Amino acid sequence: MNELTIHLDQKSKKPMYEQLYEYIKQDIQQGRLGAGTRLPASRALSQYLDVSRSTVDLAYEQLVSEGYVESMARRGYYVCQIGSLYRLPVRQAKGTEREIADQDPCRYDFSPSGIDLDSFPYGVWRKITRNTLIDDKKDLFQLGDPKGEWQLRETICDYLHQARGVNCAPEQVVVGAGNDYLLLLLSVLLGNGRHVVMENPTYQHARRIFQQRGYQVSTVELDAHGMSVEGLGKSGGDMAYVMPSHQFPLGVVMPVKRRQELLSWASEKEGRYIIEDDYDSEFRYKGKPIPALQGSDKEGRVIYLGTFSRSIAPAIRISYLVLPVPLTSLWEERLSRFSSTVSRIDQTILDHFIKEGCYERHLNRMRAIYSRKHDILLARMKSLSSICRIHGEYAGVHILVEFTNGMTEEDAIKRAGKQGVRVYPLSAYYCDRQKTPRGQVLMGYAVLKEQEIGEAVKCLEKAWL
Amino acid sequence: MNELTIHLDQKSKKPMYEQLYEYIKQDIQQGRLGAGTRLPASRALSQYLDVSRSTVDLAYEQLVSEGYVESMARRGYYVCQIGSLYRLPVRQAKGTEREIADQDPCRYDFSPSGIDLDSFPYGVWRKITRNTLIDDKKDLFQLGDPKGEWQLRETICDYLHQARGVNCAPEQVVVGAGNDYLLLLLSVLLGNGRHVVMENPTYQHARRIFQQRGYQVSTVELDAHGMSVEGLGKSGGDMAYVMPSHQFPLGVVMPVKRRQELLSWASEKEGRYIIEDDYDSEFRYKGKPIPALQGSDKEGRVIYLGTFSRSIAPAIRISYLVLPVPLTSLWEERLSRFSSTVSRIDQTILDHFIKEGCYERHLNRMRAIYSRKHDILLARMKSLSSICRIHGEYAGVHILVEFTNGMTEEDAIKRAGKQGVRVYPLSAYYCDRQKTPRGQVLMGYAVLKEQEIGEAVKCLEKAWL
Repeated sequence: MNELTIHLDQKSKKPMYEQLYEYIKQDIQQGRLGAGTRLPASRALSQYLDVSRSTVDLAYEQLVSEGYVESMARRGYYVCQIGSLYRLPVRQAKGTEREIADQDPCRYDFSPSGIDLDSFPYGVWRKITRNTLIDDKKDLFQLGDPKGEWQLRETICDYLHQARGVNCAPEQVVVGAGNDYLLLLLSVLLGNGRHVVMENPTYQHARRIFQQRGYQVSTVELDAHGMSVEGLGKSGGDMAYVMPSHQFPLGVVMPVKRRQELLSWASEKEGRYIIEDDYDSEFRYKGKPIPALQGSDKEGRVIYLGTFSRSIAPAIRISYLVLPVPLTSLWEERLSRFSSTVSRIDQTILDHFIKEGCYERHLNRMRAIYSRKHDILLARMKSLSSICRIHGEYAGVHILVEFTNGMTEEDAIKRAGKQGVRVYPLSAYYCDRQKTPRGQVLMGYAVLKEQEIGEAVKCLEKAWL
Repeated sequence: MNELTIHLDQKSKKPMYEQLYEYIKQDIQQGRLGAGTRLPASRALSQYLDVSRSTVDLAYEQLVSEGYVESMARRGYYVCQIGSLYRLPVRQAKGTEREIADQDPCRYDFSPSGIDLDSFPYGVWRKITRNTLIDDKKDLFQLGDPKGEWQLRETICDYLHQARGVNCAPEQVVVGAGNDYLLLLLSVLLGNGRHVVMENPTYQHARRIFQQRGYQVSTVELDAHGMSVEGLGKSGGDMAYVMPSHQFPLGVVMPVKRRQELLSWASEKEGRYIIEDDYDSEFRYKGKPIPALQGSDKEGRVIYLGTFSRSIAPAIRISYLVLPVPLTSLWEERLSRFSSTVSRIDQTILDHFIKEGCYERHLNRMRAIYSRKHDILLARMKSLSSICRIHGEYAGVHILVEFTNGMTEEDAIKRAGKQGVRVYPLSAYYCDRQKTPRGQVLMGYAVLKEQEIGEAVKCLEKAWL
């Protein structure tokens, strides 16, 4: 045991046992004390080093608890095989998905899920953030209400009532970190073994969440009025996922009659629910916004889902569910212990943003911006009118382009890509791809600047004409 | 149709159709146009008002789409029954749970889940927040990586490697809004029909999440070394949920041998996993922190769960999972489309807080503060040594008090309550309450100020002696 030459500093601030522990640990890590080596008995070492026995015991104990040394009954302490204990895996290259997207250099991206952040009121957001944090508000740093801050929930109710015709009280509102999370939470609330019926095409994100949750997911066709309620009835499902105000991606608005049929379907049987995803109802450029289905629900069957991620900024991870009254007691029973996923600070900032009128101003500004981009795109696309028809306009932030000259979706995307323009496949939103109508692509206009839209369409002319 | 006297303003900024729509809507809402009333044919009304036919059509269309008016084929437009369409439910009183807690006036709260926020570096947090938002950084307001920001994940890896002996690469790290969310996400990753084995007593929050997810949950006993691996084997479970560094609520530290047994159990069969909840490993006042079990896992069976909610502030809704390498590809397959639940802004603030050394300083400060409170509480509790024994000290932010004079848990809590002191039942953490050891309570010392601890123990002397 002569390898163990240890100089312990009695005057150090570091306790003696810790100094000893560090020495031995280093010797083991650096291989000076190999696996299987027997450490000196604690009594012997304490005499050798002239320290108390408990100093050695404490150091050995720590080494044992960290796995460097093993204590064998009546045989003493042995160094463990630690060769690969602290191996750090080689860091792989960063996220593959993003790399693939970057491979294809694209000058003009008609992403249907993009958002125009050029006009985001950064200054206002900064100011509200600063004011929110200005005092040492201990409360703000505590865990908040599992459903979300009461004040924000009141504010959301008032907004929804005025802007969307949604009838609700703050008790019905659950604030959470994004739609995906809230759909997941909702699936926990409603329990296993559900059967969700979705439109075809639909928002594939939601579909994947239900599938991952082990739900049966089936699809029924969309007609000009939205989900076929006849198809829904035949499907045997007990939940319908719809976007009545502006179907994604087709842009269909569900008229009152279909809404009533849908509500009737739900009230026919106990346990049936309609999830109303009101994802981008804020943006409508012709006529007034269509009120939410929830506002016509008298039986408590509609679960309303809204988000600020699209209307403010994607980084604002704040969405909300409006539960029908009968589900609020089930929520209390099953989910009231789930901690909130949004910090009180972020909720307070958003609450001020809405209450001080910044949200309304922002929405009006964005509506004007998107409406202008929409008009420019439609005007420019006239040059392509000999080969395509436009659908799903006047709302949201994308249009649907249907080729009338037999060009396939794949072909259109490829040709556009060669001119540096990315357009998006409609087929990606179909669950049953065989039913995808031929030759249609999605073009979102939120991200491109006004001037770029014209330039991009010029490229499309080269690509498609 | 004489009730309908409408003055449309040709010069108004509001379009004519919208003015018409507003008039009719108001008349319906205020009952001047009753349900069932037939509206004039659009041609007749357009002549009567001297406006274009399309103005009337557009107004009617909007009324129909909002459900005020119904169009019946070949019969015209009829006012709908809308009496209760916009009813707003009476707002109920606010959250009952909180009210119950407020009923019992308590001067000294030994909450085991509390956090000392008096020493939170508000100024530093504010400054970092301000600096993060200082430029109009569009990127920050975009949706980030589903797993969390790469930089933060690197920072977490470095921290975990140094402080906890955890071996991981950023690819293995998933950042999410709190432990509850991450456990839910994990349960989606691992699929339905799992059987989780937990210690008895354990963290009931996690237990409820697994139960709500439809998992079979069973418990095995704890001995002085932690979860009984024999019991685990017999349980038939395929997942074990443990807190090896500091079991909650008993404070047991799992020694290396038991850790090895646990790891062996996991590697015996495909699909077995250990969830290591390392919830408060930052706080240890005697000896060095015990490294995480994850660091000894060579087979990729340990899923490590950590959080900043306890070590920084509960409002910081940022936790993280470290997945074993084999699960990362499953994650890509099943969950890579789940949007991140934490905003890029919040992640960036936290990243700077750690990188600039503020986190380490904060932890050191808190460790000193908690250690001092711990010592004061232990010193003061000596006056009660004739009736109780202390367990689970030297780590975390609570102690366990076992009564040696036959006093029951219920009795102790009641008597303490009468003196204005709240102590917490150990039985609340037992799944099988019959197995709860008699006469033990939890006392957390994070929230009380140093001086209050002495005052509170004085009250307990009156209550218990």
